[in-house]
Amino acid sequence: MYSPLPDLVLEPVIRNALAEDLGTYGDITTRTVIPADVTYTARLNAREAGVVSGMQIARIAFHLVDPSLKIETLIADGQPCAKGDVLMTIEGSAASILSGERVALNFAGRLTGIATMTATYVAETKGTNCRVTCTRKTTPGLRLVEKQAVLHGGGFNHRFSLSDAILIKDNHIAAAGGIAPVLEAVKAQASHMMRVEIEVDTLEQLSQVLEIGGADVVLLDNMDTPTLKEAVAMNAGKLVLEASGNMTLPRVAEVAATGVDYISSGALTHSAKTLDLGLDF
Amino acid sequence: MYSPLPDLVLEPVIRNALAEDLGTYGDITTRTVIPADVTYTARLNAREAGVVSGMQIARIAFHLVDPSLKIETLIADGQPCAKGDVLMTIEGSAASILSGERVALNFAGRLTGIATMTATYVAETKGTNCRVTCTRKTTPGLRLVEKQAVLHGGGFNHRFSLSDAILIKDNHIAAAGGIAPVLEAVKAQASHMMRVEIEVDTLEQLSQVLEIGGADVVLLDNMDTPTLKEAVAMNAGKLVLEASGNMTLPRVAEVAATGVDYISSGALTHSAKTLDLGLDF
Amino acid sequence: MYSPLPDLVLEPVIRNALAEDLGTYGDITTRTVIPADVTYTARLNAREAGVVSGMQIARIAFHLVDPSLKIETLIADGQPCAKGDVLMTIEGSAASILSGERVALNFAGRLTGIATMTATYVAETKGTNCRVTCTRKTTPGLRLVEKQAVLHGGGFNHRFSLSDAILIKDNHIAAAGGIAPVLEAVKAQASHMMRVEIEVDTLEQLSQVLEIGGADVVLLDNMDTPTLKEAVAMNAGKLVLEASGNMTLPRVAEVAATGVDYISSGALTHSAKTLDLGLDF
Amino acid sequence: MYSPLPDLVLEPVIRNALAEDLGTYGDITTRTVIPADVTYTARLNAREAGVVSGMQIARIAFHLVDPSLKIETLIADGQPCAKGDVLMTIEGSAASILSGERVALNFAGRLTGIATMTATYVAETKGTNCRVTCTRKTTPGLRLVEKQAVLHGGGFNHRFSLSDAILIKDNHIAAAGGIAPVLEAVKAQASHMMRVEIEVDTLEQLSQVLEIGGADVVLLDNMDTPTLKEAVAMNAGKLVLEASGNMTLPRVAEVAATGVDYISSGALTHSAKTLDLGLDF
Amino acid sequence: MYSPLPDLVLEPVIRNALAEDLGTYGDITTRTVIPADVTYTARLNAREAGVVSGMQIARIAFHLVDPSLKIETLIADGQPCAKGDVLMTIEGSAASILSGERVALNFAGRLTGIATMTATYVAETKGTNCRVTCTRKTTPGLRLVEKQAVLHGGGFNHRFSLSDAILIKDNHIAAAGGIAPVLEAVKAQASHMMRVEIEVDTLEQLSQVLEIGGADVVLLDNMDTPTLKEAVAMNAGKLVLEASGNMTLPRVAEVAATGVDYISSGALTHSAKTLDLGLDF
Amino acid sequence: MYSPLPDLVLEPVIRNALAEDLGTYGDITTRTVIPADVTYTARLNAREAGVVSGMQIARIAFHLVDPSLKIETLIADGQPCAKGDVLMTIEGSAASILSGERVALNFAGRLTGIATMTATYVAETKGTNCRVTCTRKTTPGLRLVEKQAVLHGGGFNHRFSLSDAILIKDNHIAAAGGIAPVLEAVKAQASHMMRVEIEVDTLEQLSQVLEIGGADVVLLDNMDTPTLKEAVAMNAGKLVLEASGNMTLPRVAEVAATGVDYISSGALTHSAKTLDLGLDF
Repeated sequence: MYSPLPDLVLEPVIRNALAEDLGTYGDITTRTVIPADVTYTARLNAREAGVVSGMQIARIAFHLVDPSLKIETLIADGQPCAKGDVLMTIEGSAASILSGERVALNFAGRLTGIATMTATYVAETKGTNCRVTCTRKTTPGLRLVEKQAVLHGGGFNHRFSLSDAILIKDNHIAAAGGIAPVLEAVKAQASHMMRVEIEVDTLEQLSQVLEIGGADVVLLDNMDTPTLKEAVAMNAGKLVLEASGNMTLPRVAEVAATGVDYISSGALTHSAKTLDLGLDF
Repeated sequence: MYSPLPDLVLEPVIRNALAEDLGTYGDITTRTVIPADVTYTARLNAREAGVVSGMQIARIAFHLVDPSLKIETLIADGQPCAKGDVLMTIEGSAASILSGERVALNFAGRLTGIATMTATYVAETKGTNCRVTCTRKTTPGLRLVEKQAVLHGGGFNHRFSLSDAILIKDNHIAAAGGIAPVLEAVKAQASHMMRVEIEVDTLEQLSQVLEIGGADVVLLDNMDTPTLKEAVAMNAGKLVLEASGNMTLPRVAEVAATGVDYISSGALTHSAKTLDLGLDF
Repeated sequence: MYSPLPDLVLEPVIRNALAEDLGTYGDITTRTVIPADVTYTARLNAREAGVVSGMQIARIAFHLVDPSLKIETLIADGQPCAKGDVLMTIEGSAASILSGERVALNFAGRLTGIATMTATYVAETKGTNCRVTCTRKTTPGLRLVEKQAVLHGGGFNHRFSLSDAILIKDNHIAAAGGIAPVLEAVKAQASHMMRVEIEVDTLEQLSQVLEIGGADVVLLDNMDTPTLKEAVAMNAGKLVLEASGNMTLPRVAEVAATGVDYISSGALTHSAKTLDLGLDF
Repeated sequence: MYSPLPDLVLEPVIRNALAEDLGTYGDITTRTVIPADVTYTARLNAREAGVVSGMQIARIAFHLVDPSLKIETLIADGQPCAKGDVLMTIEGSAASILSGERVALNFAGRLTGIATMTATYVAETKGTNCRVTCTRKTTPGLRLVEKQAVLHGGGFNHRFSLSDAILIKDNHIAAAGGIAPVLEAVKAQASHMMRVEIEVDTLEQLSQVLEIGGADVVLLDNMDTPTLKEAVAMNAGKLVLEASGNMTLPRVAEVAATGVDYISSGALTHSAKTLDLGLDF
Repeated sequence: MYSPLPDLVLEPVIRNALAEDLGTYGDITTRTVIPADVTYTARLNAREAGVVSGMQIARIAFHLVDPSLKIETLIADGQPCAKGDVLMTIEGSAASILSGERVALNFAGRLTGIATMTATYVAETKGTNCRVTCTRKTTPGLRLVEKQAVLHGGGFNHRFSLSDAILIKDNHIAAAGGIAPVLEAVKAQASHMMRVEIEVDTLEQLSQVLEIGGADVVLLDNMDTPTLKEAVAMNAGKLVLEASGNMTLPRVAEVAATGVDYISSGALTHSAKTLDLGLDF
Repeated sequence: MYSPLPDLVLEPVIRNALAEDLGTYGDITTRTVIPADVTYTARLNAREAGVVSGMQIARIAFHLVDPSLKIETLIADGQPCAKGDVLMTIEGSAASILSGERVALNFAGRLTGIATMTATYVAETKGTNCRVTCTRKTTPGLRLVEKQAVLHGGGFNHRFSLSDAILIKDNHIAAAGGIAPVLEAVKAQASHMMRVEIEVDTLEQLSQVLEIGGADVVLLDNMDTPTLKEAVAMNAGKLVLEASGNMTLPRVAEVAATGVDYISSGALTHSAKTLDLGLDF
């Protein structure tokens, strides 16, 4: 797993979330009812087992609200947690902790959910060389942190944005008039630092891609397991193969065993269950 | 349901999502392979039945990418859709449509999912005066649009931010030394345009709240159905009652029948299933 | 009075003001004529008596210009000051202090003026339960800090924005076709965390509002004192009553004595006299 | 008077104010009670006589809320208005007009107040060559528009920011060790596109400034009228003279008659009375 | 060459430049001396021959200043121009054209300079398969538009940012303990959509890279021409080879002839001469 | 030379550059291959002699990436450096140093280049009173830092933006109908804190400007040396004279000797050669 991001890169998305939650006027409840001198120690608890993500974010969020809070991360991003584990302790002004609580929990719950779901996919690939990757079906505005959570769960990242790499889908092929003109356009224009992936729906298309060249990765879309196996054989290790489309958990082991290099799933980011985390005092 | 928001209010969250998805360099795939003069008409289809949300956002997103696109919304936010319905048509440059597709779908799929889940909750309350409301357990950065989706599904909105209204939870009561000092602090300070809600876990606490005054709404936390009925009786119409905590779909009808005014559920926003929408050409 | 806001919430408006005053190129005068090693202690003085506001802001402003300045607040926001009182001392680089001076003074002078004017209104309500509140007639961009100043002066805050609460004015009633349809629309749509206020110009309208229900607060617009008294009697404690329109200082005591709950005045924010503060070295 | 600013330059301050007033959720009152198809024509009226400012801003504000509004400006920025004059008509969606009303009025009322107060100062200088100018004692965040209003009232602008020009005050002189070292520092460093002004409290200081050179403008601080006359005589047309400090309206004619070139007053921006404007339907 | 970017992606950098140049108060010269009704047609002329870039940007800049200007682009980005050619005509308010002139020229002059210099490099590679590419040695804040200019000149783009692709330099190798651990770390972590490049200084290192695997591209740093030839032979078409370091124009043809795939040069962006463009009326 | 700017003023341009270079996902290379605990000391070296600029910026950039880095500036902005001199040492996490390296070098190389080129111009004026100044031909978005670099090289700054001062060029004169109406417009409107410069192409125009008055500075455009001498004689010390247009290095000494007060050159900012700086470990 990569080293953590510098806080600088994560701060804007956290500031945005704090602005949204604090609103114009701050936490009017704590400002009204909590005396300024009440302090305590809060514990961020996992109420379910999973793989942790969002701890760096939670730390930054609490420190933006109040730089004087003392924060200790007990289980770091990317580590497994059991039900009941304390992930982080936050010590200091009760009002500050209560004001930052929801943002920290909303991030950490969602991201730990993604990391945890990713880990269940990854577990199914054990014993193969197949890797699990996410897609661009992420929550608008949260792609960076959701893709980090996929890494924390042991997965890999696909493109971050439309400018990261070339991925030619069926609609592109249709609009451009076929696989051949598309790949010729790519060979003429794509730079050497830009990966090229192309979606194929049939083995005939795969064969055409292998012949024409210009692609690094082939997205095998919505193929059944026997067809995936044939694709692996036909490819003979030349290009990277990514199986995509309806890659539900029960299929993962079987697909991984076909020899494809990657299984990609939008569900990791758009359908992961928020993990139940709580802040106890 | 409220009238739509002015586009001005929605634009920042959409610009943010487009910046995230277009990346530094735009949609390098369409820039490479789609000739500039290819145009067509795309249809945004519902691949599942539901209640629509995100159409205003999808329209703004496509128009930000290319103001010359012609867009027609066939099923508006808040309306039901059947599987296979066309929600919107977009006509113009193929490259522009492909560049805006993912952002539009990511918003619309998530928001239609929320509206649809909300509608299933609301359906369970039919024949009662009980309303369904969301919480602040929303996706960081998307609270505005997720809360709009709850409205589109027939639900109501709770606080938008910590500065919208006073909501005193168990942790506040603990930190401030009990219900009485909390409510006295509120009476002394809260303005007349600020609603006050207080969480109670027991009927004893409810009785105390009713006696002391200062609250408009009581959050009945994690009570079973018989206790909720007692709470309704004890309240005798004085305060607004909101049942919260573990309000899963199977419980909704039963809880609504107790006579509480609101059922609140974080699941509407943090656990709604993304609805399957697609863009066909 | 509420606890102070976290600095995080106030920073954007202060950064904006510093950017405006420092300009592209910083304080070119001090950069030209003040040697870098000159230090001293400056005192922020009240040249008139009043109620202090803007000290938290002044502190943040000076620290944004130069984090190494040593700042001590002697009279905190919300406290009274006499002519000649030292409100704050700032110690460190002369160039830094001079560069931050105008922004700090512009905020503090204006806000202390608002707090002071509010306090004179509040003083007139002594012995009654009537409270003084501001309106949305604030300086564009400064609503947050001006409303804070009203609190510092002992007043209360009305809506912060159009999305905070429902306030139905004569124009809304006219456009929507009368009080009855308006209140029915509100009952059908307004959430339980949203206060509802309605403006009435006559006792007949007040009677109608009381009968139909759906409102929490009634704005009694431009009524003379005897009519206000009648309104209080007619209301019989049911709704919160806010007297508004031409609430000049000489009328405050008399209006407060009628038994209305709130007196609202736009003048607190749009016509308060800037208090004379100075920075002495 | 200068030509108007491009809208581009004014937009940020207006967007900021609209964001502040619309809040997260837009104008919830009009969204609740005003049917979407109600349209009418609103008139922005002057309820007092004055000199108009803020019409360009009001137009931009309404168009940001709803680009389809038809707006006609009847009395332009910088023109006089009589009580009862219609300054602008706005035609279109009632909901849109009501949503933009407060921002438009808050700007226009404040700015027309500044333009009007400036015009009363300027009127007192009639028959002399003396000009009236503002200072940096402006509302944080509104300096641009307040200084425009001073122009609309017939006045002139002083520095916009600390990087616009060099203005050496008593504190600078004290910190730098006297007038001589200050002016030498300026001569050595200040560029030819940068004006230099220096504050003097006595005629001795003025004499010193005239002798040393390096300044373009002298700020004559807090001098009585006979001393100002002596200063004019001593200067003999060499430098531009600006009288400042306690330049209240009753003194203006007398000071203008001394022959000083400029009278500067912070009151124009920090103490102008908001002019009473209203939006009628 | 790729299709143009959507205006949306270019706007932020142009708005930033206009804000910088217009300053707080707009173009005070034209506001003072140009009557509002003076209109004319300006021609953007090339005073030197070159390859055009920056026309899309110039168009956006003028339209941001004044949407009513009529603009016609005669020579598009990526096309050659001769000395004296008119690149663009702008018709409308003289004041608007003068206000936007400097920003448009500063962009277009610099970018046309880059495109032109790139084209001279590309011309030297004629008859080979060698491509010319830029680096990250770009002007801070202008990387997007400078890299576009390289494309307009017929070149290719290297990484846009540190998150675009992996490029392992000598310092990384040193810090990580050698080529082997670096490439193993890459193989274990890098995703399939991420290209990997590694810098080598010697043929021994190249041989090691070829043996270990894990890289797509090799940066041959500061090698003389015979060594480059040997590298090409040793590589035998396996990896993409990029020659870098001191790739001055006189060396380009010779290096291209060695068979390397790319020549990269920071000079294209950091040392291109601004082309002389002028706006004539 | 002026004192340094507060970091606050420089931070936005540096944050912008870091965001551009770090990209969405941070420095993926160091995150992949550099173990988190590797630390060392890097030295920022001058590989050519010159005059240093950009050290304050480099320090801020490294500290934004990682506040725990220990940074020592050995040769400050404005000081000369010899080939091989160490300008700054940075000690701490290797990954942090590598992540900030390119931004720091891109700024420092460009700015040191500008300071160095400025110093060569200034050296040519030795023994005269003539000063060297830049223009508005700066890199879009970098005007502030490039103009600082001109100061560091011993030069002076011209206008920062179009709102800083009035500069009437030939196009303005043409559009406004001649020198006389232009200068009358200026006298009527320009404030006393605003410098006025006017461009003349001939001695006849200079004579007209001297006669009409209203200008402080005359830009002598594209005149040969004998004409410049005549202009100096004709002016007789009345106005500030700035020679502009084709002021290449070989002409500087000769032009400076004519007695003009300023020589202005766009080349200082648009054509300075980036100085070769490197970061060694």
